[in-house]
Amino acid sequence: DIMRIPVDDPVAFTFFTGYMAMAAASVFFLFERSTVADKWKTSLLVSGLITGIAAVHYYYMRDYYVSTNETPIALRYIDWTLTVPLMVVEFYLLVRAAGAKASLLWKLILAAVIMLVFGYIGEAFTDGSMGHSVLWGSLSTLGYVYILYSAWMGEVAQLAAASNSVAVQKGVRALAWFILVGWAIYPIGYMAMPGGWLGPDGAGLLRPHDLDLLYNIADAINKIGFGLVVYGIARSESAVKV
Amino acid sequence: DIMRIPVDDPVAFTFFTGYMAMAAASVFFLFERSTVADKWKTSLLVSGLITGIAAVHYYYMRDYYVSTNETPIALRYIDWTLTVPLMVVEFYLLVRAAGAKASLLWKLILAAVIMLVFGYIGEAFTDGSMGHSVLWGSLSTLGYVYILYSAWMGEVAQLAAASNSVAVQKGVRALAWFILVGWAIYPIGYMAMPGGWLGPDGAGLLRPHDLDLLYNIADAINKIGFGLVVYGIARSESAVKV
Ligand SMILES: CC1=C(/C=C/C(C)=C/C=C/C(C)=C/C=O)C(C)(C)CCC1
Ligand SMILES: CC1=C(/C=C/C(C)=C/C=C/C(C)=C/C=O)C(C)(C)CCC1
Repeated sequence: DIMRIPVDDPVAFTFFTGYMAMAAASVFFLFERSTVADKWKTSLLVSGLITGIAAVHYYYMRDYYVSTNETPIALRYIDWTLTVPLMVVEFYLLVRAAGAKASLLWKLILAAVIMLVFGYIGEAFTDGSMGHSVLWGSLSTLGYVYILYSAWMGEVAQLAAASNSVAVQKGVRALAWFILVGWAIYPIGYMAMPGGWLGPDGAGLLRPHDLDLLYNIADAINKIGFGLVVYGIARSESAVKV
Repeated sequence: DIMRIPVDDPVAFTFFTGYMAMAAASVFFLFERSTVADKWKTSLLVSGLITGIAAVHYYYMRDYYVSTNETPIALRYIDWTLTVPLMVVEFYLLVRAAGAKASLLWKLILAAVIMLVFGYIGEAFTDGSMGHSVLWGSLSTLGYVYILYSAWMGEVAQLAAASNSVAVQKGVRALAWFILVGWAIYPIGYMAMPGGWLGPDGAGLLRPHDLDLLYNIADAINKIGFGLVVYGIARSESAVKV
């Protein structure tokens, strides 16, 4: 079982770096957890779980891709089924101190489920037509837009505005930008699929394999990057308390 | 050994998410254990053991199912042989503070053994007939009903009613609902088997593979969900004490 990674395949390259980066990030968050104040410990644990879960799935996706040269759709969505709700839990932990209720958590999780179920139908059951890709992609986007709205103008944003904690405000500002920029990479990757607007049957700007390239880049930004931002806030907040 | 997960197989999907969710939950319970008051630490440890044991069995069940497309009956009952008594231990830990005696623990474990032994005979040694499925399923249900009765009206319920601890009352209310709703999913899944009331030889509402789908969903609810409810109670109780 030798790892034969084609030197000219950026998708394979990012599957491998993604795997190791997720595993390393998980160890980082779990170890550093003991250096932050108690109220931040759960956030760092959740970051460690998100990247740890992703490490296992990247391990399988990497081998699947290198062996078959195909997109590991089922594995990707199995990962998201767990990690996207956990990302939402991380958002919720940030605003809980500002008075967020459990109902907010459930609304965001429902939006995430809508986003993922329709996205899965769009990718897994495609007939290669643009109609299929656009229909299910649009429905999925409704869930995404709801989360985006909540972070910029809706309940999450309002809780942060009403809070007098600098940490909550910095955290919510960061998450709003991650959802706007980092999360937007996924629908762009989705449009590289057969029948997608940016793929070979559409504008021709992306090849089908760019879907995995973009998903891998976005996953690193959102899973590791957002975790690091939360860690930074937690550290500076913990220093104040000491 | 590439993981080839058919995109249209929800049973495989839940075996994979179940595996990773159990592993993540186990890490969560074991890490968060240090954030609760001492008297709750054993409960969180037991939750971590239940989900950790399940993670290992899901690892094997997943591979068994994907390779053979068959129900991993033996592995399933090997898991339950350990995790169901541990769930009962978790119930006992909740009411111990309200004066529960060890004899209660043994009665509940005996009921669980009856439930599992007869259920195993029903599934593993079926001749495909409805007579076999219904006979052993009914005997198994006697054990289930005893546990249900204890939680809603019997010894467990009476201990909670007589206790003046809010934590005990909230915990017992939660477990009563989990046993009524979450545990009821298992006998429904059982009826999807050949000869079962809801399967192809009965009402035809379920396909045989729905047995594993329902068991997987129920396991996530009962093992992770109930653990999280206990964790929530433990955290709020610990905050009061600190
Ligand atoms: C809008 C949209 C999508 C959005 C996916 C997103 C936003 C995924 C986020 C994943 C994260 C944040 C993982 C981190 O753990 C899909 C499903 C590609 C389908 C097309 C439309
Ligand atoms: C009533 C009944 C059953 C009940 C099974 C149950 C209730 C299993 C619970 C498992 C749990 C709680 C695992 C968690 O760790 C069987 C055996 C399917 C056989 C048919 C009748």
